[in-house]
Amino acid sequence: MAARGKKLINDPNDVVTQFIEGLAETYPGLQYLDGFPEIKVVLRSDVAVGTYDKVAVICGGGSGHEPAHGGFVGQGMLTAAVSGDVFTSPPVNSILAAIRAVTGPKGCLLVVTNYTGDRLNFGLAAEEAKSEGYKVEMVIVGDDCALPPTRGIAGRRGLAGTILVNKVAGAAADAGLPLEEVAEQARHASKFVGTVGVALSVCTLPGQETSDRLGLEQIELGLGIHGEPGAAVTELQPVDVVVSRVLKQILSSETRYVPITSGDRVILLTNGLGATPTMELMIATRKAVRELQLEYGIATDRVYTGSFMTSLDMQGFSISIMKSDATILQCLDSSTKAPCWPAGTNGDRQKPAKISVPAPPSCAMKSDKMLQQSRELTKEGCILEACIEAGAKEIIRIKDSLNEWDSKVGDGDCGTTMYRGAIAILDDMKKWYDILCKAAYASLKGIKTVEAKHWANALQASIVAISKYGGAREGYRTMLDALIPASEILRERLEAGDDPLDAFIVSSEAAMTGAESTRHMQAQAGRSSYIAADKLASAPDPGAMAVAAWYRAVALSLKSMSCHSKS
Amino acid sequence: MAARGKKLINDPNDVVTQFIEGLAETYPGLQYLDGFPEIKVVLRSDVAVGTYDKVAVICGGGSGHEPAHGGFVGQGMLTAAVSGDVFTSPPVNSILAAIRAVTGPKGCLLVVTNYTGDRLNFGLAAEEAKSEGYKVEMVIVGDDCALPPTRGIAGRRGLAGTILVNKVAGAAADAGLPLEEVAEQARHASKFVGTVGVALSVCTLPGQETSDRLGLEQIELGLGIHGEPGAAVTELQPVDVVVSRVLKQILSSETRYVPITSGDRVILLTNGLGATPTMELMIATRKAVRELQLEYGIATDRVYTGSFMTSLDMQGFSISIMKSDATILQCLDSSTKAPCWPAGTNGDRQKPAKISVPAPPSCAMKSDKMLQQSRELTKEGCILEACIEAGAKEIIRIKDSLNEWDSKVGDGDCGTTMYRGAIAILDDMKKWYDILCKAAYASLKGIKTVEAKHWANALQASIVAISKYGGAREGYRTMLDALIPASEILRERLEAGDDPLDAFIVSSEAAMTGAESTRHMQAQAGRSSYIAADKLASAPDPGAMAVAAWYRAVALSLKSMSCHSKS
Repeated sequence: MAARGKKLINDPNDVVTQFIEGLAETYPGLQYLDGFPEIKVVLRSDVAVGTYDKVAVICGGGSGHEPAHGGFVGQGMLTAAVSGDVFTSPPVNSILAAIRAVTGPKGCLLVVTNYTGDRLNFGLAAEEAKSEGYKVEMVIVGDDCALPPTRGIAGRRGLAGTILVNKVAGAAADAGLPLEEVAEQARHASKFVGTVGVALSVCTLPGQETSDRLGLEQIELGLGIHGEPGAAVTELQPVDVVVSRVLKQILSSETRYVPITSGDRVILLTNGLGATPTMELMIATRKAVRELQLEYGIATDRVYTGSFMTSLDMQGFSISIMKSDATILQCLDSSTKAPCWPAGTNGDRQKPAKISVPAPPSCAMKSDKMLQQSRELTKEGCILEACIEAGAKEIIRIKDSLNEWDSKVGDGDCGTTMYRGAIAILDDMKKWYDILCKAAYASLKGIKTVEAKHWANALQASIVAISKYGGAREGYRTMLDALIPASEILRERLEAGDDPLDAFIVSSEAAMTGAESTRHMQAQAGRSSYIAADKLASAPDPGAMAVAAWYRAVALSLKSMSCHSKS
Repeated sequence: MAARGKKLINDPNDVVTQFIEGLAETYPGLQYLDGFPEIKVVLRSDVAVGTYDKVAVICGGGSGHEPAHGGFVGQGMLTAAVSGDVFTSPPVNSILAAIRAVTGPKGCLLVVTNYTGDRLNFGLAAEEAKSEGYKVEMVIVGDDCALPPTRGIAGRRGLAGTILVNKVAGAAADAGLPLEEVAEQARHASKFVGTVGVALSVCTLPGQETSDRLGLEQIELGLGIHGEPGAAVTELQPVDVVVSRVLKQILSSETRYVPITSGDRVILLTNGLGATPTMELMIATRKAVRELQLEYGIATDRVYTGSFMTSLDMQGFSISIMKSDATILQCLDSSTKAPCWPAGTNGDRQKPAKISVPAPPSCAMKSDKMLQQSRELTKEGCILEACIEAGAKEIIRIKDSLNEWDSKVGDGDCGTTMYRGAIAILDDMKKWYDILCKAAYASLKGIKTVEAKHWANALQASIVAISKYGGAREGYRTMLDALIPASEILRERLEAGDDPLDAFIVSSEAAMTGAESTRHMQAQAGRSSYIAADKLASAPDPGAMAVAAWYRAVALSLKSMSCHSKS
């Protein structure tokens, strides 16, 4: 969770200029005009004033949408980007400065998102530039599909579809086309694209309070990128459901916002809104491609997933769908030096995305043989299975405690991880595979009748294996602090001639005591070693507790089976 | 603000496999092994099993660090990436599967982040692969500089520096070097890099509750990427202060973790932790480059800014500094098809990042002339200045109300934007430039004695200009709903022979009434047109209110000046 209004900034008034300075430090192919704070223009380092021999493509608008548009400046995409203050259209002067800085004899195309302020300021700048002798064309992008068609003069908002329009325009310009044709291709692309956004949180303007408009279980559908409320508020749902709703809205046959129907091919852009992890964006992309194919009969030619046109720190995404044709595909695929255009996305996939797991070289029989051998265990096999099952169930039972301890001294997922392991074991015991088990198994296999001392030896072998590969010893606050005392007591009791099951029970208590004692140990291995001693004392080592719990469950299970068989 | 535990996912158990499927949809150069859910391996589409003629470079670890490491698979970087579950080391079997899938006769290098689980599992897989006849080398990366040197056997954690090590190893392998040399270059790079992270929020594991460990005004320094608490908790400070602290920690002469001193050259990597906007990362980068140069005498050869190795949805960043040398630079600059390696970052900057704002072509005199003309205003000029000043001060006074109204019906920044404008106007009235003013000025200039009717005409001219470029009319819920009634009343009263100042005051009241009446209008233009009517009724149009307030302040100011001159 991002905290209320927390930002990694200095003065809220300097966020845009300092962003541009950082951008220029990162990308040597970019430069900017020395006109801060009023003029905030990023341009190609390799284009000199007045001499550019291709059509210049300029886009811009309020800031807060980074990397748009400065990150898309580079050969093959934008020639310059003009930024206003956060969510504020750039002043006419600054747009004029950008036009003057990069426009040569072939003229320039202004790509403008459809907001009143942007239309006004870019329009005025265009008129002024024309009066100065420049050739200027303007294309308005309004790709929003969230709202019904009749909403006064404002029209549809410009959203992330603008990124695709800029790429098409930039490629057309780079190919040497004249201004009219570059503008025509940009208009063509802008008519082909539709976008709908989803927000999990409201963005916070630098230096301002965070809105609590959205509840803990709510999301907004059909939002803009300036913090304005979405068209609908709905319950938080699995992302697959959300993606379905978004696609339905874009492809609505009522609004007919985009001319896309079954059998068409499309471009997909999944755009993060600023605070959305790549993992979540990719999960949305996965669903969108499948849904388009299965529900609409629409194949996807290209997919772009990333955070391209954001809304400050908003959590959520937008999906843009552009109808694909040969011209658009060629423009999208053509090479660009714009640093934030997604690499590795061009061209068709040549073969399926999924390939078989390769077999081990020349020993494909190995695992079958092991499997065979384990099947040969009969009575002991049954006991082993029962023990493993008891252990797994105990882990499932104490999952939350393990997580709680781990959140204090580690990364909070010990319970979940062990739980997942336990579930997997219960699902298919034959596939169980880990060091503890493997070492114990190696020690046990080949022995016809498993006796108590064999179990003790197996336990000892496990300890040695763990110690060897992990490098831990007793007192290091690891699972060994449960296993070592357990092993010692077991061996001691068996040598003293105790009943093996009683010895096992006593040994399991030693494991539990050992695990509890980790509270007072300074960690020497694992993630807890990065945590201060006083914090560690608040919980035992979760790994040690898990092992001890498992061990005790096995002991109790054996004891109970023995009672049953005796009675 | 990202909300508590909200995620765009489906089943928490499927996040990694669904991420990989989305990744493959996005990048046709990637494929994955058909071994879900246990085996989660992403590999190059163009490398066939057993035949790869270069050293394969494999990295991996727990998931939750996307795009690491799957997004860094591609020619020139990783050959395969192995993912475990979230924050959980991948099982030995899956690492083995990756080795078998991409390793040819030249062998493979395993790049492993220094965590006990990863070392254990990659180590076991390496041993097993060797027993199957593969040549395998392993390099451990532990770039963390947050903790004191003596912390048991665990050693320093592997953090974002791993990305740079992978690039170096991948480039060395792609150049055709033998396994030993690829491993040597990776070890060399890993010794040269140090990292410290900063968190504003704690990450939330899929399906789990969010930790409230961090207060609203706190940040953590020296954190890991698995949600473990940072080495120190401190107050939220400007990012420049935070960056200074981070650099101090990395370059500490006490720990001597990285062999970097004054006069050296370095590589900088500013890495977002998952929910950090690009804007904030760039602002951190800006400071880091300057601080290195000015405080440490260290020049920065290359800068990488982005979210490379994340920690789910954590808000914050890490900074990695790698000592630069010719070999490392060459490896970092060499071309790669890994989709998430940052484009446009290679090579040195050829000229300064900042260039002059170009003058308008052949009419550089124009603005000077205008300035000159406005200087000629004498008495009227003083009155105009006083009026503008009064208006600006009124805007500053009502800033918060404007923001509040705008947060209900727009994007919440009207007050801030107007405030900024007002401040700028007060700072330098000569530079004031907007449509309203320009049109009014055009109407006023050249008139020797400004009379009331001239003011009325100027107001009318402003209204026409705004209406023409913005497309709005009366009743559209815009500033025109304040200006039009004001203009009408003013003209009416002047024609009726009223005292001009009284007419102006009455007119300003009409402006205010008109602005208030916007509460009950459905918006037809601007951002409010995307908002439902019932929400709009909760506030007047902030733009109309701002204009009316400004207008009234001017009227009152004129009236008061008149009183003073009379008394």
